[in-house]
Amino acid sequence: MKVTGLPDHVASARAEANELSVERMLAASPMLNDVRSAGEVLPGFEPNFILTSGAPMPWQEYEGGQRRAVIGAAVAEGMATSEAEVDARMASGEIVLGACHDHGAVGSVTGVYTASTPVLVVEETSSSMPGFCSVYEGSQSARLTYGVWNERVKDNLDQLKSLIGPTLGAVVRQAGGVDLGQIMRRGLRMGDDLHSRNTACTSLLVRDLAPCFLQVDGANAEEIETTLRFLTENDLFFLHVGMAAAKATADAAHGIDGSSVVTAMTMSEKEMSIRVSGLPGRWFRAPMPPFQGKYFEGFTSEDRADMGGESLIMETIGLGGMCSAAAFALSEYSGGSPAWMVENNEEMYSITVTENSRFRIPFLERGVPTGIDIFKVVESGITPTIHAGAGHRDGGHIGAGMYRAPLQCFAEAVDAYREIYG
Amino acid sequence: MKVTGLPDHVASARAEANELSVERMLAASPMLNDVRSAGEVLPGFEPNFILTSGAPMPWQEYEGGQRRAVIGAAVAEGMATSEAEVDARMASGEIVLGACHDHGAVGSVTGVYTASTPVLVVEETSSSMPGFCSVYEGSQSARLTYGVWNERVKDNLDQLKSLIGPTLGAVVRQAGGVDLGQIMRRGLRMGDDLHSRNTACTSLLVRDLAPCFLQVDGANAEEIETTLRFLTENDLFFLHVGMAAAKATADAAHGIDGSSVVTAMTMSEKEMSIRVSGLPGRWFRAPMPPFQGKYFEGFTSEDRADMGGESLIMETIGLGGMCSAAAFALSEYSGGSPAWMVENNEEMYSITVTENSRFRIPFLERGVPTGIDIFKVVESGITPTIHAGAGHRDGGHIGAGMYRAPLQCFAEAVDAYREIYG
Repeated sequence: MKVTGLPDHVASARAEANELSVERMLAASPMLNDVRSAGEVLPGFEPNFILTSGAPMPWQEYEGGQRRAVIGAAVAEGMATSEAEVDARMASGEIVLGACHDHGAVGSVTGVYTASTPVLVVEETSSSMPGFCSVYEGSQSARLTYGVWNERVKDNLDQLKSLIGPTLGAVVRQAGGVDLGQIMRRGLRMGDDLHSRNTACTSLLVRDLAPCFLQVDGANAEEIETTLRFLTENDLFFLHVGMAAAKATADAAHGIDGSSVVTAMTMSEKEMSIRVSGLPGRWFRAPMPPFQGKYFEGFTSEDRADMGGESLIMETIGLGGMCSAAAFALSEYSGGSPAWMVENNEEMYSITVTENSRFRIPFLERGVPTGIDIFKVVESGITPTIHAGAGHRDGGHIGAGMYRAPLQCFAEAVDAYREIYG
Repeated sequence: MKVTGLPDHVASARAEANELSVERMLAASPMLNDVRSAGEVLPGFEPNFILTSGAPMPWQEYEGGQRRAVIGAAVAEGMATSEAEVDARMASGEIVLGACHDHGAVGSVTGVYTASTPVLVVEETSSSMPGFCSVYEGSQSARLTYGVWNERVKDNLDQLKSLIGPTLGAVVRQAGGVDLGQIMRRGLRMGDDLHSRNTACTSLLVRDLAPCFLQVDGANAEEIETTLRFLTENDLFFLHVGMAAAKATADAAHGIDGSSVVTAMTMSEKEMSIRVSGLPGRWFRAPMPPFQGKYFEGFTSEDRADMGGESLIMETIGLGGMCSAAAFALSEYSGGSPAWMVENNEEMYSITVTENSRFRIPFLERGVPTGIDIFKVVESGITPTIHAGAGHRDGGHIGAGMYRAPLQCFAEAVDAYREIYG
């Protein structure tokens, strides 16, 4: 396809740069190596930092679930004792609010990190690029992830910090790390999209790690059993593992001069934003798009509110809504008929640079569409489909569904690309 | 559809009887309760018995892999020391050759049982019907299952008998049994056909049982680790578990007066045979049909030979080749394009009584076709598609593929039905 308005030499440099970006994505070999606290491992993280999902936004603009989650986390971390104190310390700069993406991490929904948050430590070994994500919080509706803060949420987080995180870290170290690429490839052939559905990957991870749980250095029998049961009881446990792997993979493809490939997509409770490989240091923003959801018993679209999210890092590397034909079982959970899933998946090939032959979609007998190109998006008018969970306006997980990314952020990125590269 | 040649009252009694047969299949709730030796648990089994796959056939007709497997098992069990001795003792009646199906069991490929064979003990709880299958032998090519007998095969079987079987039995008892219906339903939504592909079900079984491995009464650390690793390393481990569940399910639907529903399909190395619910005590036989295979590197169809098999008990309850659209990933392993898989699956609905709403095929958004009706088969000329492994003429596992069941056994069953019921 002729790229409108780019001189020939720019268009050909862009094609080469895009090839390099996607090569990095295709070559990715992510390993889960440890579980540590955010304060110990996140690059550039300071004890007075709180990270949250989305491109950076001033604290006073947070109003909903993300605001509640940040306040809860600040109180839990002992950074303040009340909402008013959080507001004051944000204003004074005693508490610093940052974006997960700026610290090698991605956040689930509200996506809040404080220094004690237990974090999955991944490395994409072919580039040595790290990637981090918090440990999955559990499948109960009320969680910090979904904008709820109360005593039960706190107790659960305390157990994750003091018991499950450290024990899982010991197991993973004892295993010598876990090859995530292999699990992700197999999970995709077992009906996972690796975003809204992770049942296969979670099961494969348990299967890989189970023998290592038999004897864990430095953990007692109760800690071992509690941790193993936490894994076995949560179908979506792997989501955060996959997010850390995807973050490392996408970052490996970032910062390539001339590349028009998207290397991050992120949501705060007000905006969806994208980042482009050849346009480092900038977020291209748009208001949140509409959400098409399927709700748990007793809830409707009226109850839903946006509260951020960075799990669309999965779509950024070709998974989730980009490979809907891999996960027909999602039709019951998050909506969309199998026929639509096939049609949507075919469309996604038209906005990407290549296919990932290691991530196969069995029904299509093709690799997942990889390397979203801002020019292909803008010229076709087709934007990425994004799978997502649905949060309640007052907090809580109430369903699942999908977004269609807004064209505006891609259009602004194309304008910026033209300005810089001609 | 008007059933050719049956008086109205017979046709309507048949319809009612078929409904009852499939109700029993749909209601099935199989539990894995234990692992014991064949001598301890198989109904009507005596210490001098050897069971093998297929409708009963005189010993002198066995020539290939099944003959080798029976001889190996007899020697291992101390029933003879040579092929000549096995021949002599078969002739004298000191060794009795029987059919697995006559003892509540099903056999994988050669399907040989002697008294010490470790056996998965399943009960279909809504009918209290038992079902048995030997423990999976491992994924190495050379196994008794595939007609190989040598010292390494013997050593591996010894470990299954003395260590893995008993330890797994202890784990399963400690777990209070395993709900197989739940695993099978989930596995089907994760790309398993539950015949040639069992990766999801094996992973789900490991995930269910993993916490029970942390402390096992009466087993030491090495036994526990060896057993857990055996499960985690064999994608097809669950196949034999599913076969025991399917046998109990099919037997629950057997022996219903007037029913024309198939309740068993089985293969010896020379014949494929079926059994019908309303025609108990009889096998309807046909020569083995052709096999369409995909072979492991270095092998061709020239190398293949039939050597029996009863894993088509999975097809008997609507799984395997009956639900090919559930397992698109099989296209790489055993052949057939996804488009063919959908087409084949649609055809299977035309020869069955109903759909099993608990066993869902995500792509089709339908339950698996359940209750193969001999009349529908004969009137349509469409016979069941059967997934299967491929064995080497000299023994060993060399690929996978499929059979189309021969029409002849269904036609003979229809003739017998007419004779008995009018």
